[in-house]
Amino acid sequence: MMADKVKRPIIAVGSGKGGVGKSTLTANLAVSLARAGYKVGVVDADIYGPSQPTLLDPSGQKPKARDKQLIAVDSEFGVKLLSTGHMIEPGKAIAWRGPMTGGALTQMMEADWGDTELLLIDLPPGTGDIQLTMIQKFKPDGAVVVSTPQDLSLIDAARAMDLFRQAHVPIIGLVENMAGYMCPHCGEISDPFGTGGAQAAAGQLEETFLGRIPLAMEIRVSSDTGQPLAAGDTPQGQAFAGIARKVSDWLKAKGSHG
Amino acid sequence: MMADKVKRPIIAVGSGKGGVGKSTLTANLAVSLARAGYKVGVVDADIYGPSQPTLLDPSGQKPKARDKQLIAVDSEFGVKLLSTGHMIEPGKAIAWRGPMTGGALTQMMEADWGDTELLLIDLPPGTGDIQLTMIQKFKPDGAVVVSTPQDLSLIDAARAMDLFRQAHVPIIGLVENMAGYMCPHCGEISDPFGTGGAQAAAGQLEETFLGRIPLAMEIRVSSDTGQPLAAGDTPQGQAFAGIARKVSDWLKAKGSHG
Repeated sequence: MMADKVKRPIIAVGSGKGGVGKSTLTANLAVSLARAGYKVGVVDADIYGPSQPTLLDPSGQKPKARDKQLIAVDSEFGVKLLSTGHMIEPGKAIAWRGPMTGGALTQMMEADWGDTELLLIDLPPGTGDIQLTMIQKFKPDGAVVVSTPQDLSLIDAARAMDLFRQAHVPIIGLVENMAGYMCPHCGEISDPFGTGGAQAAAGQLEETFLGRIPLAMEIRVSSDTGQPLAAGDTPQGQAFAGIARKVSDWLKAKGSHG
Repeated sequence: MMADKVKRPIIAVGSGKGGVGKSTLTANLAVSLARAGYKVGVVDADIYGPSQPTLLDPSGQKPKARDKQLIAVDSEFGVKLLSTGHMIEPGKAIAWRGPMTGGALTQMMEADWGDTELLLIDLPPGTGDIQLTMIQKFKPDGAVVVSTPQDLSLIDAARAMDLFRQAHVPIIGLVENMAGYMCPHCGEISDPFGTGGAQAAAGQLEETFLGRIPLAMEIRVSSDTGQPLAAGDTPQGQAFAGIARKVSDWLKAKGSHG
């Protein structure tokens, strides 16, 4: 059982601002990468608002432990998963100060991940304790940053990217989420949160633009019901697969790990 | 200059999950309450992702200090304001661990607020250091909780309400945001994030439902440009005013403070 000692690439998914679809992107990226042949694990580091059990594993499995080491659970999409959502009853506040969140993160990062080849970390909003512990203790190999096209979201994304840059974590690129909503009545596209803002910001900041995910009712429904669209072949699922391909290319270009 | 020693009612605006419109609601609620005659101050406690300077005061004023005490700045909407966004350069990460955030919160709460009668606190997402310091040190008189109709958001709102309940902070009520988007092409309404979920959750949890704010491009544009819709009389502005009226009624029913 030495598999968990292996050094596997760690990719952090961050946003600065919450509610921009970071968790949904992480889950769908994980499923897309799993379909592309990677053995993927997801650490839900959004400790106060853990969404990954809802997104990836609605069956409500609890992780087991062996010799005080947690064992990651298997989702039905071939992705392994650990989340505080597994451990805390729904509806109960996770009222933890920084050091406790650092402890929870460490427990999940140092769990038994079996033959997992790649860990995706769903970071909480902000640039606080969890981000600092993640960066200082587990140094991610790369970061994906998500933003809506709205200025208020881009302002926070710029702060998140600054933190990665300061810590010398390479930024794989920026994803624009919630651009382009198709009216279910007339089929026309409009942009409640604007469009193109994240792509323009990526250009200004000289970062790679990884792609655009539409604001789609299908994504919300599939997220709430634990059926990630990346598991299917709808246009939305393909948008996630396109981003996964760029992440996979980045990993290959970066060379061998572990 | 003893005005700042007055005990004024404190209302916390929280959500659990980020990106559900908590900051936009706080800013518009403040402007609505100011129009209704209250002298209102806003503490932007979303320390890692401060949005209030963009929402309320795009002119970029810096707060002054006197004898190490900060002096709240006046926005052009008659609302006083303090935010870490005033102090940290745009694009720079606010890489602070819990104790530093507690210090920043205390500095803002104990600033010179002049004749302010009512403080609204824009809380960050989660149930961590800032929420715990706010509750333990500054015990809010009441809390407004915001959620989108989406399950993923309601799950986190329930956790936030649990924290307030555990701390005996009365919950004034729940606001549903981003329900009902009107297609700019055909004028029909649809619900990318669902609808009614927050109202149903308020019923189940036996909490007051304060109202519904539509997902409207006007709100995004006005937010990004620092022109809160509550300052005008559009239908969106009136939706905020309706919620402000309920908060005002709650304050009056609660009786005299200060």
